[in-house]
Amino acid sequence: MIEFWFEFGSNYSYLSVMRIGALAAHHGVTVQWRPFLLAPIFKSFGWDSSPFVLQKEKGAYVWRDMERRSAKYGLPWVRPSHFPRRALLPMRVALIGADQPWMEAYCQRIMQMNFVHDREVDSPEVVSEVLAALNLPVADILAGAQSEANKLALRHATEEAQARGIFGAPTFFAGNEMFWGDDRLEDALAWAAASA
Amino acid sequence: MIEFWFEFGSNYSYLSVMRIGALAAHHGVTVQWRPFLLAPIFKSFGWDSSPFVLQKEKGAYVWRDMERRSAKYGLPWVRPSHFPRRALLPMRVALIGADQPWMEAYCQRIMQMNFVHDREVDSPEVVSEVLAALNLPVADILAGAQSEANKLALRHATEEAQARGIFGAPTFFAGNEMFWGDDRLEDALAWAAASA
Repeated sequence: MIEFWFEFGSNYSYLSVMRIGALAAHHGVTVQWRPFLLAPIFKSFGWDSSPFVLQKEKGAYVWRDMERRSAKYGLPWVRPSHFPRRALLPMRVALIGADQPWMEAYCQRIMQMNFVHDREVDSPEVVSEVLAALNLPVADILAGAQSEANKLALRHATEEAQARGIFGAPTFFAGNEMFWGDDRLEDALAWAAASA
Repeated sequence: MIEFWFEFGSNYSYLSVMRIGALAAHHGVTVQWRPFLLAPIFKSFGWDSSPFVLQKEKGAYVWRDMERRSAKYGLPWVRPSHFPRRALLPMRVALIGADQPWMEAYCQRIMQMNFVHDREVDSPEVVSEVLAALNLPVADILAGAQSEANKLALRHATEEAQARGIFGAPTFFAGNEMFWGDDRLEDALAWAAASA
């Protein structure tokens, strides 16, 4: 089993959301999807945005790196016109879906809305469109996502991320071993498979 | 041809210094060694140390990542008791040696002094010990390294790094394509080989 901590606003999380399912199956490892919010973690470092925005040299590099990495993995990629995008509503839905059979397809479609179709993912319209395309009960899921209990649960997940030393996304845990970054996904899966 | 920009104080540069020679040969790519100083670049971002020191969550992760990465590549690794170590003198010698046949062996030994033997590499003793072990004319090389012209040349190399958008080490260039981090070494070499 591998824990996959991710956030829809994170570009490198996009790569992992698209890759993890097939790779984990190949390694015989199950994926535990762990949505959390990056903004409160960045805020705890005194940052009011992504480091890719705050540090412009790294930011310039990251967009080229994303083009190359996406091409390497055969994934479409369009640099979003806004970055980082808030993704509170789709993240709340992700928490509802974490153990559901539709989770992977849902996450992939939300990520493609942000990083391929340049859509504002933090909107009921986009989230509804994605849920409807998956033949899911849109109204029920949105109501559950916006319930006080679910809002609190996402806050708790984010606090857990922080308590476990997570400082960016994606982050993977194989037991207590933490791996940060899409470029550590294969290592994390190999570790999880070896210690199973 | 690939340009390899590195600094002896940088732990991820250690991995690349140890790996690049054999990997580049395997790809049929020649390596242009480009020593530069990280501290002035970090200073330009308003940082007075490495981000691994300034951001303690990332720092804690990096040392575990280094253990795992070193093990993966079959390289010895001992976390230095001081980090980041100043490496001005050995960097100046590296600039002298950049086109010399002893460059790779020299760089590997300096890196091992820092990241395996926990020695203070910014000292005439350690640098002399390394040069002597390679049967090189220690006094001549040290004199050349400390000449005004060479000091200025290292400053210019660092300014060139900054002008080209380098924000960390190691950084590789395959033509105008910039790749950052030891974990992009294989991609950079593949790019250089494909465009040759």
